[in-house]
Amino acid sequence: MIKAGIVGATGYAGQELLRLLTQHPECEVKYITSRSYVDQSYSTIFGNFVTIVDDLCIEKEMIELAKQVDVLFIALPHGIASANVNKELLSMTKVIDLGADYRLEDIEIYDHWYKTAHNSSELLEEAVYGLCELKREKIKTARLIANPGCYTTCSILSLTPLLKEGLIDEKSIIIDAKSGVSGAGRGLDIGVHYAECNESMKAYKLAAHRHTPEIEQELSLAAGDKVTVTFTPHLVPMNRGILTTAYATLKDSTTYENIRMAYEKYYKDEYFVRLLPEGVYPETRWVKGSNFCDINFKVDERTNRIIVIAAIDNLVKGAAGQAVQNMNILLGINEKMGLEYIPMFPA
Amino acid sequence: MIKAGIVGATGYAGQELLRLLTQHPECEVKYITSRSYVDQSYSTIFGNFVTIVDDLCIEKEMIELAKQVDVLFIALPHGIASANVNKELLSMTKVIDLGADYRLEDIEIYDHWYKTAHNSSELLEEAVYGLCELKREKIKTARLIANPGCYTTCSILSLTPLLKEGLIDEKSIIIDAKSGVSGAGRGLDIGVHYAECNESMKAYKLAAHRHTPEIEQELSLAAGDKVTVTFTPHLVPMNRGILTTAYATLKDSTTYENIRMAYEKYYKDEYFVRLLPEGVYPETRWVKGSNFCDINFKVDERTNRIIVIAAIDNLVKGAAGQAVQNMNILLGINEKMGLEYIPMFPA
Amino acid sequence: MIKAGIVGATGYAGQELLRLLTQHPECEVKYITSRSYVDQSYSTIFGNFVTIVDDLCIEKEMIELAKQVDVLFIALPHGIASANVNKELLSMTKVIDLGADYRLEDIEIYDHWYKTAHNSSELLEEAVYGLCELKREKIKTARLIANPGCYTTCSILSLTPLLKEGLIDEKSIIIDAKSGVSGAGRGLDIGVHYAECNESMKAYKLAAHRHTPEIEQELSLAAGDKVTVTFTPHLVPMNRGILTTAYATLKDSTTYENIRMAYEKYYKDEYFVRLLPEGVYPETRWVKGSNFCDINFKVDERTNRIIVIAAIDNLVKGAAGQAVQNMNILLGINEKMGLEYIPMFPA
Amino acid sequence: MIKAGIVGATGYAGQELLRLLTQHPECEVKYITSRSYVDQSYSTIFGNFVTIVDDLCIEKEMIELAKQVDVLFIALPHGIASANVNKELLSMTKVIDLGADYRLEDIEIYDHWYKTAHNSSELLEEAVYGLCELKREKIKTARLIANPGCYTTCSILSLTPLLKEGLIDEKSIIIDAKSGVSGAGRGLDIGVHYAECNESMKAYKLAAHRHTPEIEQELSLAAGDKVTVTFTPHLVPMNRGILTTAYATLKDSTTYENIRMAYEKYYKDEYFVRLLPEGVYPETRWVKGSNFCDINFKVDERTNRIIVIAAIDNLVKGAAGQAVQNMNILLGINEKMGLEYIPMFPA
Repeated sequence: MIKAGIVGATGYAGQELLRLLTQHPECEVKYITSRSYVDQSYSTIFGNFVTIVDDLCIEKEMIELAKQVDVLFIALPHGIASANVNKELLSMTKVIDLGADYRLEDIEIYDHWYKTAHNSSELLEEAVYGLCELKREKIKTARLIANPGCYTTCSILSLTPLLKEGLIDEKSIIIDAKSGVSGAGRGLDIGVHYAECNESMKAYKLAAHRHTPEIEQELSLAAGDKVTVTFTPHLVPMNRGILTTAYATLKDSTTYENIRMAYEKYYKDEYFVRLLPEGVYPETRWVKGSNFCDINFKVDERTNRIIVIAAIDNLVKGAAGQAVQNMNILLGINEKMGLEYIPMFPA
Repeated sequence: MIKAGIVGATGYAGQELLRLLTQHPECEVKYITSRSYVDQSYSTIFGNFVTIVDDLCIEKEMIELAKQVDVLFIALPHGIASANVNKELLSMTKVIDLGADYRLEDIEIYDHWYKTAHNSSELLEEAVYGLCELKREKIKTARLIANPGCYTTCSILSLTPLLKEGLIDEKSIIIDAKSGVSGAGRGLDIGVHYAECNESMKAYKLAAHRHTPEIEQELSLAAGDKVTVTFTPHLVPMNRGILTTAYATLKDSTTYENIRMAYEKYYKDEYFVRLLPEGVYPETRWVKGSNFCDINFKVDERTNRIIVIAAIDNLVKGAAGQAVQNMNILLGINEKMGLEYIPMFPA
Repeated sequence: MIKAGIVGATGYAGQELLRLLTQHPECEVKYITSRSYVDQSYSTIFGNFVTIVDDLCIEKEMIELAKQVDVLFIALPHGIASANVNKELLSMTKVIDLGADYRLEDIEIYDHWYKTAHNSSELLEEAVYGLCELKREKIKTARLIANPGCYTTCSILSLTPLLKEGLIDEKSIIIDAKSGVSGAGRGLDIGVHYAECNESMKAYKLAAHRHTPEIEQELSLAAGDKVTVTFTPHLVPMNRGILTTAYATLKDSTTYENIRMAYEKYYKDEYFVRLLPEGVYPETRWVKGSNFCDINFKVDERTNRIIVIAAIDNLVKGAAGQAVQNMNILLGINEKMGLEYIPMFPA
Repeated sequence: MIKAGIVGATGYAGQELLRLLTQHPECEVKYITSRSYVDQSYSTIFGNFVTIVDDLCIEKEMIELAKQVDVLFIALPHGIASANVNKELLSMTKVIDLGADYRLEDIEIYDHWYKTAHNSSELLEEAVYGLCELKREKIKTARLIANPGCYTTCSILSLTPLLKEGLIDEKSIIIDAKSGVSGAGRGLDIGVHYAECNESMKAYKLAAHRHTPEIEQELSLAAGDKVTVTFTPHLVPMNRGILTTAYATLKDSTTYENIRMAYEKYYKDEYFVRLLPEGVYPETRWVKGSNFCDINFKVDERTNRIIVIAAIDNLVKGAAGQAVQNMNILLGINEKMGLEYIPMFPA
């Protein structure tokens, strides 16, 4: 049995992680930490866990926590992981960080977008960006995984084959992304107060969302050249789900079938990426509660653009599910273990 | 491996059943039938099943279907099961009917409430009402299970201990029930057209809902006397979940602790019934996607009434999950198998 | 033109009041106050008011505010009005308090339920409970109006004719009430954080909600005898609307028509109370955005109970709309002025 | 008083139109027609109208209907207006068609996108595209108004100033649009069955939505050159509201202030177009129930693109409200009459 610890178990991602790990056949959760709920029984915070997990939330130095487990999941706001993870800690346990601290390779870009001191930038080179389908080999031997963001997972999986195969103009990429409200986290804020966001829709952080550099970093890698994108997130009144609509100009006039081949080249053996049948487009309901990323696209012949639609569950493939997938790869067990859930519908 | 068949796999209950059975470690689904979608691939109807179940929906005589399986699930509107199930069929396979045809013992009550000819009333005596926690022993040896309705499961589990222990006035029971919209099924109807029921609430079928006689039958059994109830269902703008608020007058002035003992007598070893801590009341979010029924109550000392709150997922404990639980009991395997999911939150 | 002031204009009731008064043909709002947003432009808080109300929120002693207006609306948490309203203030302006401070005639009952010191209990006798349809004559000559709560308006209008006409057993009343989330106010709280209450339903404050004594006071008046009720509020995932389902035992076996006559006796000339046609029950969508209270009932002959359903918009007839109706009566203008909106659907 | 008739009063747009016209101080609705509900009282279909509009729905030849009114509103599926409107009818009354039949000037483009015979193409030249802010002078003298579609109103108002002032590359326009579910109409369809679209999001009609040619026609007019756009509509789980996010490449590097001047040139005196303060972006909640179109934009300096956000209520400015605005202009009364509602929040 894998021994796992969750640091920050009372946010939405941490809670979903605990749900997945508790049901994982080869994993045992040794402790759950929470600064806000220390010494409270978990099931008094999240009633879904009544009779299942009644453990108390603890708070402890991360280095002490590291000693007890094979893998340490960190689900905290950015800046805290970087202040606590170091080489000593990494010599004790594998780390999967669900936050942003180790996602960007370039410390200057981190500084620019996060405006926070990074206290372990010496680990950036070692950290592996844990988008499993694209980084599997590197993940296998890593000690420190930077689990990707929700918008980024969906965006990067959507566009990578097009860039790798040189099918689109790299300067033409626009990503219009839509997220359910759980993506905003569990912290109280008037913007996610029920009556303020229910039955309404908005764009936010225009040309300024922190997932932008993460997307650009990975798309640049795919393109072999610097890619800059316009990225616009939107808030949608529903609990879970991300839908991305990506636009790009095709380099040459081509057909659905030709582009489809590019996607199949990268994803046809990927269990968690589902290329839908031609003419069928992703909807968030069909991935809810699962680790799937559904993808399809349309060639807009009138404008010579491609429109790529992708959907994930932001808390699963966009956070906790991918973290478990990373754990499975890291520890050499079946990558799908504990993740083969059929999406729940209607949910 | 148990061989199972699903007749009526494209309603919400049938679809949820297919999801649960596909994930069940000891079960194999041999076929799925659908009158409306015959010869269509299942995943073109329910996109959550893409790459998982691409089987075609078939249509065939029920007697032919019965031959191929150990257990036949029927998830059809009332009247169809009763026209097709008979002793010959029952000699071939176990039947779990998710519809209403075999729930009422008294054919006159069926006639009165359903106004439909019942074509196999000779089986009513044999049929076992499959509320697992209360009928486990009878289920074990049954051939024909009448899987309870959603409102009824929640209502009966709420009130049975109080009646069995003689704590409440049997004439005083009022059940105010609230259901998410999936309870209304997948048939097109202006009442469940999105913009007609979203952001609104209503009561419906006042003093006339067909779950009433089913509740009364089982509560009468518990009371050892004829029980008549006022039952009012309401439609709530959410996908899944049932919450029942039941009211009754206490025979004697008593305490929370005393009544709690009655509930614990019946449910303390029941995995799927969770008696919540004092002062904590069920919410549908905490059972969503699971087979749990959460229960708690409050003594209103000012009026000497008890208020019992219970919550289930209408498609799981209220339909498909309980059907699987019945299958497990019928076929002598671990009752919890394939049902031990932690409720998904937020969902 | 009536000069009006709003103290506490940035809660949901205050904001709705400002919307109604701004559109009112005979009213001019002289100022809006807000402790939390002092010196902020109103339209930066509530974007619906952009280009319409850009006034700054102010904060000032209530006595100073009173001097400038014909009517002062107070929409604050309980305890603040009672600390500021006094006879001197009432000599300057009419007061309509949307809070709870002057609703209960008996100071001991206030103390018991609110556990807050009441600083102007000498005004309780003078204050008029502003349920317009039932207290119109008293309102006309009042100086201080206690605007009723949302649950209470709906409950009292539902049951008053039955009690006045002696049709029901006064000891048998149970009110099962359901509210949209705006009823919980605009204060941040995990319970109304979007992903915590969306797609879920719960009961709360069982046998302990503060609207209970208010309902009992007014129903006792109607009955001419002390009435005690069981009252259970529920939270429903929608923005606006209250639905109450009230149960009572009929004294005699009677017909729909007979009881209908009782309702018509009290409401047939009341514009804002709509008795629906037989067999048609209130739904919150049909009153949304309006000052209507829709009512209908069913006789459950099997149990000799009556089930009364009523629906209001909690922010209009349940708060700001009724406050405007009170203003109209108080100041002798057409009671319907500024309130004749057709409910908005779908909304 | 203006005499108005509504043909097709039982769709969502027709019903909203009836609500607005009933409340309009200078208008009297002479009749309401409905093929589906002929001889039914209107308030039995739409309960919000109980005690307000109890008229029966009629069905009659359009030419007969035309005789009785000053203005005839047609809110029917495309193809029906074109088969009934003709010069004789236009000699009797003004016509405002909320459908698509007279929106496209070029009959070939109509044929291509609608694949329906157009039976009065001789009227296309005479018909005026009723986007009030941009066509006011032509509307004043028109007999036949083609009321714009919901997506198109929002899109065209967003982009016109940029094209008129030559600020953007005309070939670079992408419009990512999101609509609430009422936009799909009242016809039963599995796609808008509550549990199928609630809590989910999808794109639909990719590169194929019929509002595309309408947007291109008007943007081409603004640009003085042929404009082709990529237009992607999305379905969002909420009742009302449209949000458009439009992207275009700036011809020159410029500032927010410079572009703002272009918008102000066209809209600073337009009551129903609200340019929000810098840094504040439209949200559908702030326009709900009103005729406003809120607009703002962001310059994405990293990619030299502009991102324009706009929001309308699809049933008001996107349909019935704009139709009333057109009526007001046509008949020479105050353009704002009957439309000065403050958006309702939360709703």
